[in-house]
Amino acid sequence: MDFVFSDNASGVKPSAIREILKLSSQPGIIPFSAGNPAGEAFPVKEVTAITEELLSSDPIGALQYSVTEGYLPLREHISAYMKKTHNVGRDFDKLITTAGAQQVMNLTAKALCNRGDVIVCENPSFVGSLNAFRSMGAKLIGIDMEADGPDISQLEDAFKNNDNVRFFYTIPNFQNPTGITMSLAKRKAVYELAIKYNIPILEDNPYGDTRFSGEALPTIKSMDEAGMVIYAGTFSKVLSPGLRVGFVIAPEQFVDKLVALKQTQDVHTNILGQQIAYKFMTEYDYDGHLKKLGEIYGRKSALCKGEFDKYFKGKIERTDPDGGLFVWCTLPQGVDMLSFVKTALDKKVAVVPGTAFLTDESAPTQSFRINYSTPSDEMIINGMALLAEAAQEFLK
Amino acid sequence: MDFVFSDNASGVKPSAIREILKLSSQPGIIPFSAGNPAGEAFPVKEVTAITEELLSSDPIGALQYSVTEGYLPLREHISAYMKKTHNVGRDFDKLITTAGAQQVMNLTAKALCNRGDVIVCENPSFVGSLNAFRSMGAKLIGIDMEADGPDISQLEDAFKNNDNVRFFYTIPNFQNPTGITMSLAKRKAVYELAIKYNIPILEDNPYGDTRFSGEALPTIKSMDEAGMVIYAGTFSKVLSPGLRVGFVIAPEQFVDKLVALKQTQDVHTNILGQQIAYKFMTEYDYDGHLKKLGEIYGRKSALCKGEFDKYFKGKIERTDPDGGLFVWCTLPQGVDMLSFVKTALDKKVAVVPGTAFLTDESAPTQSFRINYSTPSDEMIINGMALLAEAAQEFLK
Repeated sequence: MDFVFSDNASGVKPSAIREILKLSSQPGIIPFSAGNPAGEAFPVKEVTAITEELLSSDPIGALQYSVTEGYLPLREHISAYMKKTHNVGRDFDKLITTAGAQQVMNLTAKALCNRGDVIVCENPSFVGSLNAFRSMGAKLIGIDMEADGPDISQLEDAFKNNDNVRFFYTIPNFQNPTGITMSLAKRKAVYELAIKYNIPILEDNPYGDTRFSGEALPTIKSMDEAGMVIYAGTFSKVLSPGLRVGFVIAPEQFVDKLVALKQTQDVHTNILGQQIAYKFMTEYDYDGHLKKLGEIYGRKSALCKGEFDKYFKGKIERTDPDGGLFVWCTLPQGVDMLSFVKTALDKKVAVVPGTAFLTDESAPTQSFRINYSTPSDEMIINGMALLAEAAQEFLK
Repeated sequence: MDFVFSDNASGVKPSAIREILKLSSQPGIIPFSAGNPAGEAFPVKEVTAITEELLSSDPIGALQYSVTEGYLPLREHISAYMKKTHNVGRDFDKLITTAGAQQVMNLTAKALCNRGDVIVCENPSFVGSLNAFRSMGAKLIGIDMEADGPDISQLEDAFKNNDNVRFFYTIPNFQNPTGITMSLAKRKAVYELAIKYNIPILEDNPYGDTRFSGEALPTIKSMDEAGMVIYAGTFSKVLSPGLRVGFVIAPEQFVDKLVALKQTQDVHTNILGQQIAYKFMTEYDYDGHLKKLGEIYGRKSALCKGEFDKYFKGKIERTDPDGGLFVWCTLPQGVDMLSFVKTALDKKVAVVPGTAFLTDESAPTQSFRINYSTPSDEMIINGMALLAEAAQEFLK
């Protein structure tokens, strides 16, 4: 039979750039297009020891059904940790674990959005979140990114001129795809606008713990006296993405609804992954591990930016992130970006065309995203040389 | 702030019986209300050895991001296994792994249902699935269960009299909560109605491998020449529910849409759990393990039914399942079922009021569900004696 899809599901379509991304996963391709943590960032020895201990001390507890809210010791520990280290979480807040931060984006949109409602997003932004919002039938309004975060006057216009804005989605630290960090002034301004227009903020912070330069800035959630901010965290970049463990901290009334919705999606997050995260945080040098991550990504980003500048300084603009996994590069006006990306692929180098990250995928953009965490150092060096070859005909 | 929820999310509410279920998880309570696999059913030694091997041979592969479709060796192995052992899966079908079978129910409803569309369900049925459907704004139409499965003439009426039926949801083997198995004649009739009215079937088979008496019957999917059937399977009852690994087999056009939707929910199913399932199926005596499961549940169900009959024969009706984890019990007319369940709780015995499983939770029912997999043998014996004490004032 021919299946007829719902209106919301019909809105989730393979995009034009999907074919390019498919090509980029072929063997022999240098994957500047990926977003995987570096192999050396995985605490393999620790996870191995923890898992062995879990399966010998209480195997049924690691394999049996658990509660939707998440593994209680982990929930309690993250709550205390986030309060202590980030001043995140007040008495009115509640924490549950999720299947990565991705599930927080999906559940938040599901909890708040009727078909046709508006979600305001940084533009460009993380495509996985944008697609989660699209899958609820949301209309996306994009806010241009400046060097210090989203354009605040555009944000106020979006809040003021639409009566069905359900929330503002932001990645304040080392944003995906731009690598941009929102300034403290803008964090405060965003929070004030949320209060003024009574519109919640979904603050996604997957990369915050990978900072390698500059001063840490307070999260927007840390300012949240009014219970306006939904904070999404994850172990994907600091422990393992394959375990699929994230969390959300938000007002209890909101989180209780997420629990009811999560139960219908996956019953609960896999319990072994949650227990591994708990023991890794509590029985090992977690802060030391985060420091090591900063060193790894600092080194790799410096290598990537150095090689990039060797070929492209003054020719292709790029951002200069203080953390995270990505650099955002912008070709001069007049250069056909998609054509450049395809030529690079012919040279066996994959980058992601910026189109993928736009709230309106049909809008023009000169930008593309480079990832420096997935490729090895050698691949970064060789990849930039190949990218330079590909660029020759475009940058005459 | 006060969060205002979407129409679909507002439909997912804590039900009246939730309070009873909460009480039933208190310590000291005999949990006839649960649905956990028996502790002795977990292949602990095997999972421990497999996990150790996975984390020593390719730790990054077990912890890194993976693809939404699922771990390829597992997908290929289940496909071949289901074809060989159940004649499930044709050339037009595709298999992906999911976060348990629960995610299949959620994604199927999301793919097919607009708000207000109809999903036809067995009545009673598994509350987790019903809530997944409700969370999409679906209207549920319930089909009464007879001793050999759903009432076929009611099913045809439902198909005939509603122009927006999106699918029929069924658990043909040892249904939750009734323990009823659909006869071969009804399986054929259901499939023929699906063809006649061009309405897909969502066949949920979590318990099929736990059969302990009677002859195995073909799945509806095995009859599916026309590509009408979406088949959901899971490792929750045969390996571990905590790992959250299930799968769906359905026509490729449909499954490709689920992939796009799943990507927005959780990116992919945790990879360690998938790899454990793969190795358990391929490197150990999987069929021997299933045989052992049948023995465990056969023994526990016999004990449960024997103790039940000792006190309640001729007083409370019960089903006589050939597999699965549940017996469905029905009090005589005139007895206040909810009041009976509460009295049982006072005696420290928890059963689930049948109301929880109705497509219309406000409809009357005399039934309650008993689970025999979670309580120990001793708990089953003591629990039935306590239930008999609770029943005294109701069965005079």
